[in-house]
Order: sequence, then C-alpha cells, then structure tokens
Amino acid sequence: MRFAKGHGTGNDFLILPDPGDAFSLSPSLVARICDRRTGLGADGVLRAVRTASGWFMDYRNADGSIAEMCGNGIRVFARYLLDHGLAEGPHLVVATRAGLRHVRAEPGGEITVDMGAPVVLGRSGAVIAGTRYDGLEVSLGNPHLACLVDTPVGQLDLSVPPAVDPARFPDGANVEVVRLRGERRLEMRVHERGSGPTQSCGTGAVAAAVAAQTASFPSANGTGVRSTTTWMVQVPGGELAVTLSQATSQLTGPAVIVAEGELDEAWLRGDPA
Amino acid sequence: MRFAKGHGTGNDFLILPDPGDAFSLSPSLVARICDRRTGLGADGVLRAVRTASGWFMDYRNADGSIAEMCGNGIRVFARYLLDHGLAEGPHLVVATRAGLRHVRAEPGGEITVDMGAPVVLGRSGAVIAGTRYDGLEVSLGNPHLACLVDTPVGQLDLSVPPAVDPARFPDGANVEVVRLRGERRLEMRVHERGSGPTQSCGTGAVAAAVAAQTASFPSANGTGVRSTTTWMVQVPGGELAVTLSQATSQLTGPAVIVAEGELDEAWLRGDPA
Repeated sequence: MRFAKGHGTGNDFLILPDPGDAFSLSPSLVARICDRRTGLGADGVLRAVRTASGWFMDYRNADGSIAEMCGNGIRVFARYLLDHGLAEGPHLVVATRAGLRHVRAEPGGEITVDMGAPVVLGRSGAVIAGTRYDGLEVSLGNPHLACLVDTPVGQLDLSVPPAVDPARFPDGANVEVVRLRGERRLEMRVHERGSGPTQSCGTGAVAAAVAAQTASFPSANGTGVRSTTTWMVQVPGGELAVTLSQATSQLTGPAVIVAEGELDEAWLRGDPA
Repeated sequence: MRFAKGHGTGNDFLILPDPGDAFSLSPSLVARICDRRTGLGADGVLRAVRTASGWFMDYRNADGSIAEMCGNGIRVFARYLLDHGLAEGPHLVVATRAGLRHVRAEPGGEITVDMGAPVVLGRSGAVIAGTRYDGLEVSLGNPHLACLVDTPVGQLDLSVPPAVDPARFPDGANVEVVRLRGERRLEMRVHERGSGPTQSCGTGAVAAAVAAQTASFPSANGTGVRSTTTWMVQVPGGELAVTLSQATSQLTGPAVIVAEGELDEAWLRGDPA
C-alpha cells in the first residue's frame, strides 16, 4: 500500500492512492496507520479512488470514523493529484461525501477550495476555563461556534473542551476563539469536536471570518456579506485566506507533500515484533 | 533522501540510510523531519553510516540535538539492517557515540541490546505532584532516578517535570515511577529529561529493573545482582525484558518497521507551499 504524507497549515494527512477502489479500509486499520508513535501518524487519511469523471476523496478521521469533508485535507489531496499528473489544473473537481467540491491551484503554489455558503444559525455561548464567551453559530456542513475575543488567543486554555449549549448543539460543536488583528486580519485557535486543539481547521477559519465579518459589517442577510471580502486568518500552523462572497466561501492556503513511500507488508498484516 | 519509520514499544524513529556518509544533517533539518505535523514525525533520527567493519548509528533527538545512545533506537536500527541484508544476524555490533554495542536478533523476532553495566550512585528523592518519592540513582550513561511506588503508576501525574535534587543531578534526570506487579514483573512510567512523559524508555526500563532488584535482593555490590535475573517491564507502549547479570544489562523487546519511502525533494529544499 503506497502512501504520501502532506499537510496544510499543520493539519496533516496520509494520502492512500487506490485508483481501482481495491482497499477495504477498516476503522481499526485507519487508527493504526494514524497512530503517531506506532504507525505513520496523521490527523486523517485521504483515500484517492478514481471515478468515471475524476477522483473521490474517501476521508477518514484519525480514529477511523468517516467524515464528509475536510477543507485542509482536500487541498492536500488536490496537491497530490496535480503533482502526479493524475488531474489537470488549475481547476479540478473532487467528489466528497458532502458533494462535488471545486478546487483551484493558484499561480503562487497555494490551493483554493470552494467551501460552499456558510449558514449562520444564531448566537449562543461557550464556557472556556470558567469564562463565558458569546459566539456566532455557523454551519459549514459541520457545526461551529466562533467567539470574538479581546485577549490574545494564545492565552486562552483550549485543552479542555469548551462547554456549549446542548440545546443548540446536541452533537457538540467546533469552538473558535477569534481576535481582530488589523483590517481583515484575524488570529484564531480552535477546539475541534473529537480532536481537541489542533494546528489548523479549514471550516473553522471560514467560521471565524464569518463571525468577524458579521461583527464588522452587520447586514440583513446574516453573514454581513455585501461584496467579496478576503480575510487573512492566522492559525497556530500558519496562515489561511478566507474569501466570503454572497454565494459561497473560499479557503486558500499552502498544501505541501512531505514524503512518499510504501507501508510495510508485514506491519499491515499485523505481524508481531 | 530515503527513510524508514519504525518503533520499539512506541518509541519511534526515522532511519535515514546514508552508507557513504553523504548527508549533512543540520539540527534544523532533523527538527523539521521530526515535526509530527509538518514533517514525518518521530522521537528521533537514526542515520545509518557504513564503517570499515559495520555500521555507525548517528542518533539525533527530535529537537536536533545529538545523543550518545538510545536503547530502543538501536534495536529498531538493527531490525532495519537485518531486514535489508545490510548486516548478518543473529549477532551484530553497532558503533555509537557511546562505543560499540552488541545486538542480537532473538528467534521470536525481538531484538536484544547489551546496555552495559548500570552504575548505582546513591539514593535521593523526586517530588511528583507535591509528593516526595524516594528513588535509586542509576547511571546508564544518562542519569536516572528510579522510584518504587505503591500506587498504580498510571495514576501519577508526570506531565510536569518531577523536581530532583540539583546537587545530585546538576543536569537533571530521567525519573521513573516503578511498581512491582508480581514476581519479576514491573510497571513503569517515565518522565524523560527534555522530552516529557514518553511511551517507553530503554535505559529507564533498565534503571527500573535495577531499583526493583536492589529493593528485592539487597547485596554488597550495590545493584543486588548475584545471578542473572530477567524482569518484565510494562511501559505505556508495550513490554520490555531487562536481564541483569553481574557484568552487564540487556534490553529485549519488539522492533518494528512500519513504512519506507523517500522525502520529497522540494520539501527538503524548504520550498514554500
């Protein structure tokens, strides 16, 4: 089984090319591969399956569970396809469980993905280290609560999952703390539901930009978007650009391949020692 | 630059085969490669350099600093050489900065390394989460304080570096908490100087066995060793066997290769995006 390892702003992934859809990826195998000590280690696996019209991204979380989409993952996935001549750039379409996603290779080497229209659902609060913060509820397929704060986001303790209102988020939420750093510049940290504090989160960066836009330019349509606006979002693992327009949102940032190789056959079979 | 990733009881390493001693491994490159998000990720790097009589293990910590020896690392290093026919088994000699080390492939697939004679230096204490524990000072080239405890070792908080007596350990120490679990059976956790709590530590397992042996069979020569004795040491990442004799100590355990491949050339050059 061949693999490539890559990352987008510190969100890291193992790409498993499987054009013929031959591998059955059990949750336990995904978890073994993603273990950072006894496996290769990553935030998730991106299995690449060829379809009649392109490629399907079979995304799995590090614990083996299935997820619909991953904003940083699909950018790394596209980088791999383009580097290997498996797709033609600069525009490509990737199939995901959340539907088709449009991806674009930028001239400077970054990768942009169309994340769809964020949906603002209301306002509620999160309790972080004993303090309540007000936030904007934003859905990007997955639920977010983006809280604008005045303190440097690095000073907030996200090691414990922030408490959110279970009536508003029955399945929990990704919680962002967001601080304005200048004109259309933000810093953000995130506690990802089920993963804890991470280096970066693509949908979280979009939710952060929506919260900042809504606070800066309140308007009737909920997201505050009247014309196309780009926000630079600093995350622990680097910087992402989020472009908000009336119809959709776009996420731009680096997507890097670190290494490629092959998983050991005996290890895959689970042979001891 | 080719690599293999492997581990011994959850202590993981990247082997970089460099028979001709052609690579100059800067500390910053080692740190980039060992970064678990933006690199390949590992506890350390083992560069394999051919010598007139065999192989030299150039060991580097994840932060890029140089270390003399690594008990789990050398076992993974030997597994790689044997798997690739680069050394003949079952006995081989590996050169390290700490001198020549004798390694043996066991019939069952485990790898044993001769760790040399532990040196008992005295007794002192460590403070862990506000409680003082008495321990045995043991040197295996690196300094250890092995503390026998009565509580399950999983219940002790090793997230903060235990405080040791600076007069006894001017450069700090690796601190083990060790509990007897049956006849010649131990469980152990370790706080490694500079690395924090780890899944396993080869020299720490030997220090733990010496402390248990000394407490169980006190004798004049300090380590309590009269005849050859084997202790099974449970660590968070698996199980190691430590054999103590009057002359030396031996560490036996699994050594596993997970994957092999090649680092991306553009990534190695540090190209952006």
